[in-house]
Amino acid sequence: MVTVALDAMGSDLGPEATVGGAAKASRREGAPHILLVGDEAILRRQLTVHDHDRERLRIVHAPCFVTQEDKPKDALDRMPECSVLRTTELVKRGEADVLVSAGNTGAVTLAAARTFGRLPNVNRCALGAVYPTERRRGEKDDPFSLILDAGLTLEVDAEDLVAFAVMGSAYAARISRNPEPRVALLSNGSEPGKGTRAVVEANARLSRVRHLNFIGNIEGMDIPKGTADVVVTAGFTGNIVLKMLEGVAETVIRLGRYAGDQSLRYKAGLGLLAPAVRKLRRATDWEQYGGVPILGFDHLCIKAHGRSTERAIANAIRVASRTAQTGLVQAMDEHLRALDDVEIS
Amino acid sequence: MVTVALDAMGSDLGPEATVGGAAKASRREGAPHILLVGDEAILRRQLTVHDHDRERLRIVHAPCFVTQEDKPKDALDRMPECSVLRTTELVKRGEADVLVSAGNTGAVTLAAARTFGRLPNVNRCALGAVYPTERRRGEKDDPFSLILDAGLTLEVDAEDLVAFAVMGSAYAARISRNPEPRVALLSNGSEPGKGTRAVVEANARLSRVRHLNFIGNIEGMDIPKGTADVVVTAGFTGNIVLKMLEGVAETVIRLGRYAGDQSLRYKAGLGLLAPAVRKLRRATDWEQYGGVPILGFDHLCIKAHGRSTERAIANAIRVASRTAQTGLVQAMDEHLRALDDVEIS
Repeated sequence: MVTVALDAMGSDLGPEATVGGAAKASRREGAPHILLVGDEAILRRQLTVHDHDRERLRIVHAPCFVTQEDKPKDALDRMPECSVLRTTELVKRGEADVLVSAGNTGAVTLAAARTFGRLPNVNRCALGAVYPTERRRGEKDDPFSLILDAGLTLEVDAEDLVAFAVMGSAYAARISRNPEPRVALLSNGSEPGKGTRAVVEANARLSRVRHLNFIGNIEGMDIPKGTADVVVTAGFTGNIVLKMLEGVAETVIRLGRYAGDQSLRYKAGLGLLAPAVRKLRRATDWEQYGGVPILGFDHLCIKAHGRSTERAIANAIRVASRTAQTGLVQAMDEHLRALDDVEIS
Repeated sequence: MVTVALDAMGSDLGPEATVGGAAKASRREGAPHILLVGDEAILRRQLTVHDHDRERLRIVHAPCFVTQEDKPKDALDRMPECSVLRTTELVKRGEADVLVSAGNTGAVTLAAARTFGRLPNVNRCALGAVYPTERRRGEKDDPFSLILDAGLTLEVDAEDLVAFAVMGSAYAARISRNPEPRVALLSNGSEPGKGTRAVVEANARLSRVRHLNFIGNIEGMDIPKGTADVVVTAGFTGNIVLKMLEGVAETVIRLGRYAGDQSLRYKAGLGLLAPAVRKLRRATDWEQYGGVPILGFDHLCIKAHGRSTERAIANAIRVASRTAQTGLVQAMDEHLRALDDVEIS
């Protein structure tokens, strides 16, 4: 049975949403054990108002917590007993298999860095984010591609890109149930010689990695097409790409105005498309979409958005539980270790 | 009177399109003198079939030319009398004010690098590209923003970004008749401290540059909004962003499929929007949109796309003529020189 440690404090919507989400998750079939980490009195009160499975929820007291406004380093130095550090410690000691937090992203990453080790051949960590594409993949007909890094490590070298590719592939294989996800480097041209020095070198190295379905470089237009299941890039580029995608529906409406077509025909067309555009807008807001993984530590962290609703928290717990059940960390460790056997040119 | 030197050889559609475009441009009011550079026999034959103003067109013979498939360095070494080198030499000697070429981009850039000098405080050159936005700007209600670099200099330092900002501002002021274009750095957050080391340092330096309407950092979603008139970024990022924009109309249709809304309502909506989407598709294909500047040399180069039609060539000649009339190179020289007075932190 998997145990998920949930940092129940410090999200924008407060313990009501986190406890509500955990309560909802506890009632699902095959639910994991969930440790709710935070102020015992507050969490206990919240549990009285949320229907839950008592066998699967347990409170672990932490007397204080980091807020979204706190500076991560100062806050962790000042509050060694804060909920996020308690949560990482539970995972480190093996009392939980994986952590979920909707708190301050910097504090979660720093708490993980202080408590956990890094996987072999990983110098820097990556935040994975998903976005919808035209293509469906895997057993679940999943429309989502994974892109990493989404903004944690802005500048990368070839070694970072190789590690991101290996970790992203292992994650997508488990979450999308897609045994051989197509992995690509984002570049300014599809030929292997195109790109920054880091991209060109990473391309050469990834072509020699076994057990990886590396399809080479992809370009900007391939992102929405879904040419790759896992898109590997520096956090700087990944963040810009994701923020362009978030507003893509609005973009076309705006650019439609550029096109100057203010006819009734055009307006009627927009009206008919409105429900699809709304649905798309929700799906491209990746931060609202359950949890995203922080990859690179020897224990797993699932980051939920600060504004996560009950439903988003419940989704994040489900994703976290699945990664633990399918041995994601062990698989990443093994594949990253195997990079030592790849000849370096 | 401005003189434009047109490399009439080596484009995908051949001298028919380049001579046709020059002939069309020559008939416009206020047209420049145009030097057609290439094989005299071929160009003379083309002129017989295109209605033109004889006073404004002159052929300058060049016995050979670089093809799109040639390797730039090999080709220029092997053919010192090729049309693109003849064209840069005409500009260097002052027989023409500006050059236009629809030939091999690498060869044009290399020919310029071998013939021209670089402007002060410029280490690397930038290719500027335009894309449509919701916002209109300048005297002409121009819907286009300029983004540079579009893919010539993949990796940049802070100094490159500062030079791109200054040159892009001078170009936009003249082409969009927008006296104080809003200039921004593309980054992963709007705060001055966000971004790669180069972006953070460039932000600090640009804030101290006088005579520049620097509005700070913008994010991915600001690109289609048109928050900035001039978007400054590394060629790697600029290329990816432009290629995402090119397919933006198709993107929404594709993602609409993701949204699973295959109803008649949805299909009818798409049908009504089709004319606007087609117009948008043409406008976002920046490579087809007349000419784009190669900025950084002490003489001006306008690069037209390899597949340029007569109309695109005529537009490129008009843009080239306007930059020469408005003293773009002199203005860039002056503003770049003034960077020496900016205190370096």
